[in-house]
Amino acid sequence: MMTTINEEGWKKAGLSVVVVGASGDLAKKKTYPSLLHLFDDNLLPEDTVIYGYARSNMTNEDLRAKLRPYLENSDCSKEVVDTFLSKCFYVKGGWYGDIDAFATLNQELSANEDRLSSKLEHNRLFYFAIPPNVFEETGVAIKQKCMSDNGWTRIIVEKPFGRDLQSCEELLATLSKHFSEDQLFRIDHYLGKEMVQNLLVLRFGNIMFENIWNRDNVQCVMLTFKEPFGTDGRGGYFDNYGIIRDIVQNHLLQVLTLLAMEPPTKADGPESGESIRNAKVNVLHAIPPITLDECFLGQYEGYTDDETIKNKDSNTPTFVVIRCFIHTPRWAGVPFIFKAGKALNERKAEMRIQFKDAPAASFMFDDKCPRNELVIRMQPNEAIYWKTNVKSPGFSGAPVQSELEVNYNTRFFNNSGQNDVNPDAYTRLILEVLRGRSAAFVREDELRRSWAIFTPLLHKIENEKIRPIIYKRGTRGPPQADDFIREKSGYVRNEDYKFFSDSI
Amino acid sequence: MMTTINEEGWKKAGLSVVVVGASGDLAKKKTYPSLLHLFDDNLLPEDTVIYGYARSNMTNEDLRAKLRPYLENSDCSKEVVDTFLSKCFYVKGGWYGDIDAFATLNQELSANEDRLSSKLEHNRLFYFAIPPNVFEETGVAIKQKCMSDNGWTRIIVEKPFGRDLQSCEELLATLSKHFSEDQLFRIDHYLGKEMVQNLLVLRFGNIMFENIWNRDNVQCVMLTFKEPFGTDGRGGYFDNYGIIRDIVQNHLLQVLTLLAMEPPTKADGPESGESIRNAKVNVLHAIPPITLDECFLGQYEGYTDDETIKNKDSNTPTFVVIRCFIHTPRWAGVPFIFKAGKALNERKAEMRIQFKDAPAASFMFDDKCPRNELVIRMQPNEAIYWKTNVKSPGFSGAPVQSELEVNYNTRFFNNSGQNDVNPDAYTRLILEVLRGRSAAFVREDELRRSWAIFTPLLHKIENEKIRPIIYKRGTRGPPQADDFIREKSGYVRNEDYKFFSDSI
Amino acid sequence: MMTTINEEGWKKAGLSVVVVGASGDLAKKKTYPSLLHLFDDNLLPEDTVIYGYARSNMTNEDLRAKLRPYLENSDCSKEVVDTFLSKCFYVKGGWYGDIDAFATLNQELSANEDRLSSKLEHNRLFYFAIPPNVFEETGVAIKQKCMSDNGWTRIIVEKPFGRDLQSCEELLATLSKHFSEDQLFRIDHYLGKEMVQNLLVLRFGNIMFENIWNRDNVQCVMLTFKEPFGTDGRGGYFDNYGIIRDIVQNHLLQVLTLLAMEPPTKADGPESGESIRNAKVNVLHAIPPITLDECFLGQYEGYTDDETIKNKDSNTPTFVVIRCFIHTPRWAGVPFIFKAGKALNERKAEMRIQFKDAPAASFMFDDKCPRNELVIRMQPNEAIYWKTNVKSPGFSGAPVQSELEVNYNTRFFNNSGQNDVNPDAYTRLILEVLRGRSAAFVREDELRRSWAIFTPLLHKIENEKIRPIIYKRGTRGPPQADDFIREKSGYVRNEDYKFFSDSI
Amino acid sequence: MMTTINEEGWKKAGLSVVVVGASGDLAKKKTYPSLLHLFDDNLLPEDTVIYGYARSNMTNEDLRAKLRPYLENSDCSKEVVDTFLSKCFYVKGGWYGDIDAFATLNQELSANEDRLSSKLEHNRLFYFAIPPNVFEETGVAIKQKCMSDNGWTRIIVEKPFGRDLQSCEELLATLSKHFSEDQLFRIDHYLGKEMVQNLLVLRFGNIMFENIWNRDNVQCVMLTFKEPFGTDGRGGYFDNYGIIRDIVQNHLLQVLTLLAMEPPTKADGPESGESIRNAKVNVLHAIPPITLDECFLGQYEGYTDDETIKNKDSNTPTFVVIRCFIHTPRWAGVPFIFKAGKALNERKAEMRIQFKDAPAASFMFDDKCPRNELVIRMQPNEAIYWKTNVKSPGFSGAPVQSELEVNYNTRFFNNSGQNDVNPDAYTRLILEVLRGRSAAFVREDELRRSWAIFTPLLHKIENEKIRPIIYKRGTRGPPQADDFIREKSGYVRNEDYKFFSDSI
Repeated sequence: MMTTINEEGWKKAGLSVVVVGASGDLAKKKTYPSLLHLFDDNLLPEDTVIYGYARSNMTNEDLRAKLRPYLENSDCSKEVVDTFLSKCFYVKGGWYGDIDAFATLNQELSANEDRLSSKLEHNRLFYFAIPPNVFEETGVAIKQKCMSDNGWTRIIVEKPFGRDLQSCEELLATLSKHFSEDQLFRIDHYLGKEMVQNLLVLRFGNIMFENIWNRDNVQCVMLTFKEPFGTDGRGGYFDNYGIIRDIVQNHLLQVLTLLAMEPPTKADGPESGESIRNAKVNVLHAIPPITLDECFLGQYEGYTDDETIKNKDSNTPTFVVIRCFIHTPRWAGVPFIFKAGKALNERKAEMRIQFKDAPAASFMFDDKCPRNELVIRMQPNEAIYWKTNVKSPGFSGAPVQSELEVNYNTRFFNNSGQNDVNPDAYTRLILEVLRGRSAAFVREDELRRSWAIFTPLLHKIENEKIRPIIYKRGTRGPPQADDFIREKSGYVRNEDYKFFSDSI
Repeated sequence: MMTTINEEGWKKAGLSVVVVGASGDLAKKKTYPSLLHLFDDNLLPEDTVIYGYARSNMTNEDLRAKLRPYLENSDCSKEVVDTFLSKCFYVKGGWYGDIDAFATLNQELSANEDRLSSKLEHNRLFYFAIPPNVFEETGVAIKQKCMSDNGWTRIIVEKPFGRDLQSCEELLATLSKHFSEDQLFRIDHYLGKEMVQNLLVLRFGNIMFENIWNRDNVQCVMLTFKEPFGTDGRGGYFDNYGIIRDIVQNHLLQVLTLLAMEPPTKADGPESGESIRNAKVNVLHAIPPITLDECFLGQYEGYTDDETIKNKDSNTPTFVVIRCFIHTPRWAGVPFIFKAGKALNERKAEMRIQFKDAPAASFMFDDKCPRNELVIRMQPNEAIYWKTNVKSPGFSGAPVQSELEVNYNTRFFNNSGQNDVNPDAYTRLILEVLRGRSAAFVREDELRRSWAIFTPLLHKIENEKIRPIIYKRGTRGPPQADDFIREKSGYVRNEDYKFFSDSI
Repeated sequence: MMTTINEEGWKKAGLSVVVVGASGDLAKKKTYPSLLHLFDDNLLPEDTVIYGYARSNMTNEDLRAKLRPYLENSDCSKEVVDTFLSKCFYVKGGWYGDIDAFATLNQELSANEDRLSSKLEHNRLFYFAIPPNVFEETGVAIKQKCMSDNGWTRIIVEKPFGRDLQSCEELLATLSKHFSEDQLFRIDHYLGKEMVQNLLVLRFGNIMFENIWNRDNVQCVMLTFKEPFGTDGRGGYFDNYGIIRDIVQNHLLQVLTLLAMEPPTKADGPESGESIRNAKVNVLHAIPPITLDECFLGQYEGYTDDETIKNKDSNTPTFVVIRCFIHTPRWAGVPFIFKAGKALNERKAEMRIQFKDAPAASFMFDDKCPRNELVIRMQPNEAIYWKTNVKSPGFSGAPVQSELEVNYNTRFFNNSGQNDVNPDAYTRLILEVLRGRSAAFVREDELRRSWAIFTPLLHKIENEKIRPIIYKRGTRGPPQADDFIREKSGYVRNEDYKFFSDSI
Repeated sequence: MMTTINEEGWKKAGLSVVVVGASGDLAKKKTYPSLLHLFDDNLLPEDTVIYGYARSNMTNEDLRAKLRPYLENSDCSKEVVDTFLSKCFYVKGGWYGDIDAFATLNQELSANEDRLSSKLEHNRLFYFAIPPNVFEETGVAIKQKCMSDNGWTRIIVEKPFGRDLQSCEELLATLSKHFSEDQLFRIDHYLGKEMVQNLLVLRFGNIMFENIWNRDNVQCVMLTFKEPFGTDGRGGYFDNYGIIRDIVQNHLLQVLTLLAMEPPTKADGPESGESIRNAKVNVLHAIPPITLDECFLGQYEGYTDDETIKNKDSNTPTFVVIRCFIHTPRWAGVPFIFKAGKALNERKAEMRIQFKDAPAASFMFDDKCPRNELVIRMQPNEAIYWKTNVKSPGFSGAPVQSELEVNYNTRFFNNSGQNDVNPDAYTRLILEVLRGRSAAFVREDELRRSWAIFTPLLHKIENEKIRPIIYKRGTRGPPQADDFIREKSGYVRNEDYKFFSDSI
């Protein structure tokens, strides 16, 4: 694959990266380390330069000093970090839409591009590590002063993309005034996870999956996110969003569309970006807005003790179960369950497909045959396992549940001898932007439709001050949630089963 | 399950086992050790006695002394072996049909049964560890003198069951004159293997398998038996049979019927014996007799150097590939390949189902998506693995072949803490006879039909002296065999793939 | 096909038919007319003779005179009837087991066979048009005196075959003492109906049916028998049987097994008899005995006014709805509904398969898409029609229910120019007996198992005097029956639909 | 449905129709008669006015006189025709882009709209019955002078849409400069045919079709167009286009996309236009450009005798067979055959899906079971019939091919009592434009992609002067075409079968 990337046009062209908001947390913790990783793996064009832009007073050296601790923390050698930092520069602006500052930045970028006269094209990548309220002024300044004139200009923006359908529309409008859809790359880092990116190959590269990936065979689908900690100091932000926006509408819905979509015309290669996103949007159009009775809300005990939460009577949910249906021939009648919560008993993000009973098996065997489940674990410890009944080994002929599995640590990561085998989601996604592959980024209509599904529910919860059920920290959530899931999905838990690989 | 067995009637009844041919190899190497194993696991009724019958002059002590080395070789304690041997007795006969000797035996059995007057029933199990040509006279003697009069009498007979359809019919007739079909248990030890017995649960206890177990999804099925050694001193016997009788018609065809059959009405429990055998026989009826052009024959270089082979111009095959079709709606058009050989590069017995290409995957991914294969390895190291395409971990989006697997050693055997977890095939099968479960034994009509499929081919090879292709010992067989397989089955080998678990 | 039949051995051999009970109603109305029909179509061997046996004092001419009105009623010419009658003879016996009379009969048959010395074989067919209580004595006499000594001897027996499992076993035993299963042909005339015989070709000769003939696609199956008249003078007989025995266990269960069975190994040709009957029996084994709560009983108002009914408090049902499940992978969870009744609003016997909703269709079309139904009408006016949604012809895009159909009268019968195109069930079945094709006759184990399914229910109704719901004559039955069906099957009636072909 | 339409907004609004090119053939033969039909069925808004625009000198009365013969030819009463004509007016222009003339037209339209002051909206529909080379100038004039200012303005344009990809792009550009995609309605009259419009309901409103509508069950698909006459005076036009452009790329490809597409999210209602067209375009993206070896060309004997054909050495094909594949999971490996020809033996347009052999049926029945075929006949005599095997009625058990069918004439048209039951394609499509339903019109990207598929082939035929095979007029085409089809598709013709409904 390295060969392939090296043969791609952008890899031979010049590249300037501009991190807007270079002094912020996101830039230091995610953007720069990801760029370093790409640099280390030789996945940036030669002579790439990286400009930071922010409002702080800093020299290049100040910036480098500030970044260094976050970079040395990686598995790159000090030498690599040094070289990388030597390519990092800083430009200060009075505010994010400071036209003059961007003019200055443009001069520096152009001067640099002129030095690399052997390159035919010079591309510019702007990474918006800034709050949404300054997207517009920054966009204006870039559009006026900083567009590449012999190469592409691309903008990476970060979530959140609004609080509801209306605010999303407004936000979309601010950028679309200045940039076309193919210049904009909206990051949802869930789309950079190994197992999420894997869904396409898994589903369409294996004849055995598509056959059972449908209403005839699937009892229900569960998408789960569990976090063992609470708001821990970012409660101010969280209380304004809640778990539905923060996790379900934001991340899990992305996973759902990939899991449920019809085969795209192209699943890899240059045309796949629109193919895949078309297929995802089609799923969203088949999901009607969610109503309150399809929703179970929880809040952990002591949530409002967080000092950053002002509203001590807050009804913001920290735990949610939502059921929805996808009205396509493939999925008609199959419940999809989202489950997400904070301050729970473990850290886990997984997709779980429970299949229907093996038909007539209980009659054939005069015995219980637990249902097959396919689990795709996104974190921690990426794995795919398929709960499978085998004969009890030995004298008995009775079924017992085992699994067919692939454990990514054992199978790939631990024994690869390479350190690029499981790159961070941001690193993966920045590379996708450079390659111009849009599949892993959220398209305008996708975003709009995803808000359309959740906005009525969110408004109802807020306007009618629906109270969540209180649950204890460190538990599996409110015990009533299990009943809700069972009733809404027909899910049957096999209490006897324990995933073997987790026990060794 | 132990509870269940202890509750079954036979476990509470008396039991006398008679090993006919007690001084022979089979008895010492297989029958007695298997009985010991059952004894050690408390799977024989209390007070079971075991009589050996043969033509040698021996006392009980002589017999015990002769058996002891084969038993101490097991993982049972010396104490257990001693106790077991104290239950072993010997009766001598003039010949295998010696009526008087069987009368004597009957007196001893009866006397013993009288001692256990608290038991309501006394069952008798005769294990024929003798050549087929004395089956009849032995049967006559048992029928006349040795039948249980308050319990069942069952006969275990061993392969081979004839050389062709006619000899099979004759052999069947000799025993069916004296015993009903439900008293006769014909052993094929392949039916006692863990992975063969597992097929029923695997196929019918998991909804995901039955969906793809058909002509729409399966490219071809391969049943393979490979042995790394040649005739090694049993060439005399082998030269009269050849690899087709020895392995294909005998064992692999059994595996095929279980793999290909329709769901039986009952797959476990008392009624399942006939259900399963009906389903197996139905498969055989849908296979027309095999013709020579569906057959590839090989013989390893130096085969006739074995001194026990008289015919130095022997055309007996030691390697064979055979294709057949099963004319059922499920399998119409799917090639089934048998492949068996001696003096090859490895020891292996496995079932391999190659699925069709994931439809349109090569267009979707602009890349090769190797075919899925489900491999069920019977020996060595029982395992099930399903070759599965995943995204190349890391930056690439290209498919790469991994697997979903269950490795029985890791998952079950090595960490069970029990020594009965993977019992020997004979041990499993003798227990089945005691429980009266007939599913794992070859029924009369099954045997007849299986010979009908192979007899014309065997006669043609012998009558027309078809010459096999010579191949070198320790190789994969004649290189032309691969071409034959490819043409006849459409099988595509993925040269890049190596089963990961075999490499660790 | 005529060619084929003419080439079959029995057609060239001699044939003597013996109608035992020649003076009874069944003989006159069914047996002789069917034989005439075969004779007229040249489907009997040349020189066939037909002996009547009964206890009445009659000459050959008396018999012929008695038969003539029933034969002239057919569509055969007077000439044909005359010739046919000239082959009909009569022998009188003192009782049905009159050994001497059968000895006499044998002399006549033998003398006749001797005359046809050019024929190598002479077959004898005995048609038992007599009550079951004299089956045994007749069988004894035939076995002793009347077996063909150079050809086959076959016995046709007529229903009813017992009242419950025990009486069925007894009846089976009486005949099996003297005749082997392949000599016995038990008639259920439903198995001779065009549409029932058609089921095999329809299901297995068309790829499109097997694909949807399963739990994934079928909502429920209904087998319906409706008769517009009551007991009308045969109430004495009926009151002892009731509608469950008379129609459901007897006829509809036969239809169900053919409709639900797995593909037989052979569906036509000499081996198909056992293949098909094996497949049918497998269905029966997957149906547990029916319990009372799966059953709805009705009796028409005035039922006991029939003078032949002695018990004026009779609880014998004249209407029944029964639900059962078939525990095979194909049918797990699909309700099968039997519905049968007398004194209803119409005459009809049909199989009706209602399919599930077209998935997501109501979302796709924002409109109702009635369910597909496949109706196979056995009587009157044989037809197959498949209720199918098409676009409302013209400007609208809305779905409307039409059908794909084949109307047998229009398509085959009315324009065939042949009069053998839709022969009577008895005629078809007697020909099957002559050809030795057993598929359409009820095998011993089938009969036994079918009684095992219904006997507990029948005993419960009788022992606990369960009261049926009273309904008005000439209606659709008790109105509550519709609710029962809806709840038990999920069947949804499309009130707007009317089968178009019935309206023209 | 009439209620529904009457409730739609446009029906209550004002409407002006402008037929640009009112004096041409298309206008007289198709546009005005279709408008009359809508008027007669009360499907135009009250007070609709219809302006003709052309370059001829004519009064309103002249126009009416010219139109009258074409209208009286319909099944409308003279009274209706008179009323309709009273609403027809004429405006003359100097040329098609005559700004002043369009200004005049606008005054008339506006004056008329003012008269209907009670209506809140006034819509304008421009029907371009003019050659493509004047599209642009007309568009400019409309845009400048004639847009509705309180309602929608829509443009209907007629094929041909270019000769190849490049000319198509140019043509698209001329109009898209002035109008947005949702104002443009490109007519392909095949999309107005009853059976084409029916495809959506048929496929997605019936569970039984989608199950078999795939590679597992379909052997091949054939789309056929046959015409019994040659160029007959329009050879000049035709010789420049040829049968591939005229029929295959133009019409049959439209039929193919509807037949092959995945289920759209919405299949009816306001959102369905884009859903359906998205689904159609996805099919086109999965078809690679067609190569010459997938193509068989013919020309009828005497083709160049047509005086209007200048090039007497013309290689323009009048007959073509083309095979293509659709690289989606549903269709991978299934051949799609286009077959189109002029001067053949009959008039016919149909879709024909041949299914695979019923699996194992020939083994089960020891007999031939012809393949199922589903035929959807577009013209003449709309019908759907499904070739189905049934048991030969009567004594035989052998399969024979019959059909399940719905004949539209019998079932719907002849007995409807309505004359709007099978409206002309143009009439249907104009109504769709008025309702704003875009599904039946060819979208820009669809057009572009469809030319991309055919352009390389067309250029190769023209540049390399590939010679077609000559065939006799009035035949089935070149006999070699049948071989080509057989080889390329695996299609097997059942010579014994004749569609029964065509014989009565």
